[in-house]
Amino acid sequence: MTLFTKIIQGTIPSYKIAESEKFFAFLDIFPLQKGHTLIVPKLEIDKIFDVPDEYLAELLLFAKPIAKAIEASFECNRVGMVTVGLEVPHAHLHLIPINQAKDMEFSGPKLSFTSEEMIAIQNDIVSKLKA
Amino acid sequence: MTLFTKIIQGTIPSYKIAESEKFFAFLDIFPLQKGHTLIVPKLEIDKIFDVPDEYLAELLLFAKPIAKAIEASFECNRVGMVTVGLEVPHAHLHLIPINQAKDMEFSGPKLSFTSEEMIAIQNDIVSKLKA
Repeated sequence: MTLFTKIIQGTIPSYKIAESEKFFAFLDIFPLQKGHTLIVPKLEIDKIFDVPDEYLAELLLFAKPIAKAIEASFECNRVGMVTVGLEVPHAHLHLIPINQAKDMEFSGPKLSFTSEEMIAIQNDIVSKLKA
Repeated sequence: MTLFTKIIQGTIPSYKIAESEKFFAFLDIFPLQKGHTLIVPKLEIDKIFDVPDEYLAELLLFAKPIAKAIEASFECNRVGMVTVGLEVPHAHLHLIPINQAKDMEFSGPKLSFTSEEMIAIQNDIVSKLKA
């Protein structure tokens, strides 16, 4: 069972942002930027382009309001999206608020927030989603 | 009119990979890796998450066979995808064959190919698409 399936099932806790029948969104705990969010399909499939078509058709529609909520919550030019996929064998999409291209480079330094700060970030995004 | 609209209309030449009613795919002429391909919607919209839902629903389905053809054409672990969007105000998705995360970092060195090499790369991908 992948790390992400354990997060989806709640065996491993997460700062949840949103959930649908097909997807689960939560804060990356090794964020490149404040608000860095992961979206994972509720399927253990390694490569993004092996994910079934009905999921690929819905992924960006599920991501859209989350990206808008992140963009409205944090100082940024826009929200970029990226799938690399070399670390956890469970396809996932990163949503990252950016001001410059290097803000979404994974070789860059990861930020560290306390659990109180992570909850505040979560609440910022979730409150915008519900607005 | 954006650079990408001129490419879609053929005013600026490109190494075309595929086209549908809604999207146009062509080789990035400043590639991070051999096979680096761009997909653009046939709409001049700056930010990816402002693109209409009917386009967002089809984008990854349009990208899927192209990503599979790139993956089959070049030595790589998989094809990553990324939208940054800070340079050309016309939303676009990069498909990049990668072996490590830094292979898709835009601060990395761009490759340079002759037009003959670009045509060979184009033919490699297009022949896999048709197979």
